[in-house]
Amino acid sequence: MRFLRVGPFGAERPALLSDHDETTAYDLSGLTGDIDGAFLTRLLDQGAGPLLALLEQGALPVLDLAGQRIGAPVARPPKVVCVGLNYRDHAAEAGSAIPDEPVLFMKAPNTVVGPDDEVLVPRGSGKTDYEVELAVVIGRTARYLGSPEDADAVIAGYAVSNDVSEREFQLERGGTWDKGKSCETFNPLGPWLVTPDEVGDPQALGLRVSVNGESRQHGSTADMIFNVRHVVWYISQFMVLEPGDVINTGTPAGVAMGLPGQPYLKPGDVMELEIDRLGRQRQQLGKG
Amino acid sequence: MRFLRVGPFGAERPALLSDHDETTAYDLSGLTGDIDGAFLTRLLDQGAGPLLALLEQGALPVLDLAGQRIGAPVARPPKVVCVGLNYRDHAAEAGSAIPDEPVLFMKAPNTVVGPDDEVLVPRGSGKTDYEVELAVVIGRTARYLGSPEDADAVIAGYAVSNDVSEREFQLERGGTWDKGKSCETFNPLGPWLVTPDEVGDPQALGLRVSVNGESRQHGSTADMIFNVRHVVWYISQFMVLEPGDVINTGTPAGVAMGLPGQPYLKPGDVMELEIDRLGRQRQQLGKG
Repeated sequence: MRFLRVGPFGAERPALLSDHDETTAYDLSGLTGDIDGAFLTRLLDQGAGPLLALLEQGALPVLDLAGQRIGAPVARPPKVVCVGLNYRDHAAEAGSAIPDEPVLFMKAPNTVVGPDDEVLVPRGSGKTDYEVELAVVIGRTARYLGSPEDADAVIAGYAVSNDVSEREFQLERGGTWDKGKSCETFNPLGPWLVTPDEVGDPQALGLRVSVNGESRQHGSTADMIFNVRHVVWYISQFMVLEPGDVINTGTPAGVAMGLPGQPYLKPGDVMELEIDRLGRQRQQLGKG
Repeated sequence: MRFLRVGPFGAERPALLSDHDETTAYDLSGLTGDIDGAFLTRLLDQGAGPLLALLEQGALPVLDLAGQRIGAPVARPPKVVCVGLNYRDHAAEAGSAIPDEPVLFMKAPNTVVGPDDEVLVPRGSGKTDYEVELAVVIGRTARYLGSPEDADAVIAGYAVSNDVSEREFQLERGGTWDKGKSCETFNPLGPWLVTPDEVGDPQALGLRVSVNGESRQHGSTADMIFNVRHVVWYISQFMVLEPGDVINTGTPAGVAMGLPGQPYLKPGDVMELEIDRLGRQRQQLGKG
């Protein structure tokens, strides 16, 4: 199943995308206030059965998506945890060693916006950069998971994520990376939350970014240093993951910082991001 | 005014502490669901008048605090932003240079617990440490504040915070500090949220910690490198602060990492923290 949230920022309606047609969805507001942690836990506990039964009975109102804004596919996450340097080619372009264990940092949860919302170049920024990432959305509390295999039971689904980053703030202004990761609008997410059964192998997905129509990143989740299961298990040793949390699992090579001439983003630029099976994003840059 | 939240974890009632007696409070549940961002914004907008009028009319039910658990004085924060190395003596004991600008990092918001709740030594930890800090609680959205003076308008109050830290996770496990800052129960907060008018000068408060009755930290907010106003203004240049957010403003010298023999915390130990005008905390260490 593919879940989404439709409508103005802060007033999105929860919806289920049609299997047959990406412009039609079914309104879930009669069933749940939002696509949030509580809903995702119920989904993992009950499986798809109850929802599919309602769909079959025609009990879910049809939503026409034409002309409507798509929001992030989950409500404001309790937290956004990110893995850094999780693709060999990106670690190399960043001039960093291959990490011995996952590198973790956080983004402020209020950075999360819809997949096609405007992204703001922060004031004083000269080094705003894109990072396409496979996002994992958590559906059950995860605390000291016993093994990477246990991660399967807590993953509600996957989504496209843009871990927008300001490299000067991140790397040249003292302190940890968080300073360059949490600027306003810095985490477009979606369009959909896709359940694991529809994604198949999360380590076999192509990821692509273009800027102004020019290809920049084109990688595969097969090249992650630490795979999704390992990352979820690992994070659960250091903090309690909660339903609704989002994990950005790292980006492949091709970010502006690593390219000749470092073509950082500027107002007016257009980013297009795509991950196999998870859909596409398109953001125009504006001024913060 | 001094606000607090009383009752079992996750089901606390919002309350106002009596001016005369620290064991008596007035139940605010008829007025607000919680001491949260929306309540704090209303408080800043309307001032103390409406609340004091209700108090005078005897319209607020009395709550006897005897035997009741005190929770964190604000509901789960949207985010917890921390300033590192913000006291000269602590930067020195950590072997770090005095920073040119504030060092920022984040704690997971689900680390926030009550002032006297058990703190869990994480599994695999050998270097769990305390840090008493002045916490600033935000009451209005802050985005690109024009000057440090503008911070006054967005500060709802202050509280005692224990920025519990695992030094091996923070400094020896790769990546940023966040890994050692976000473990379960790692941010006792409270007992009270004290409004700025009752705190007076936030740069003239003594901070103290003892462990098992032995004095460890005893500093003053007068020794901050970047003061409260500067910190709030600075953070607002990098991210949008929201009502209910918590900022931990750094710790003075005397953490276990900096002491001879590095007396890190172990299960059974008792931490007692205190900041002038903001009250006291007492946590016993348990096992994660």
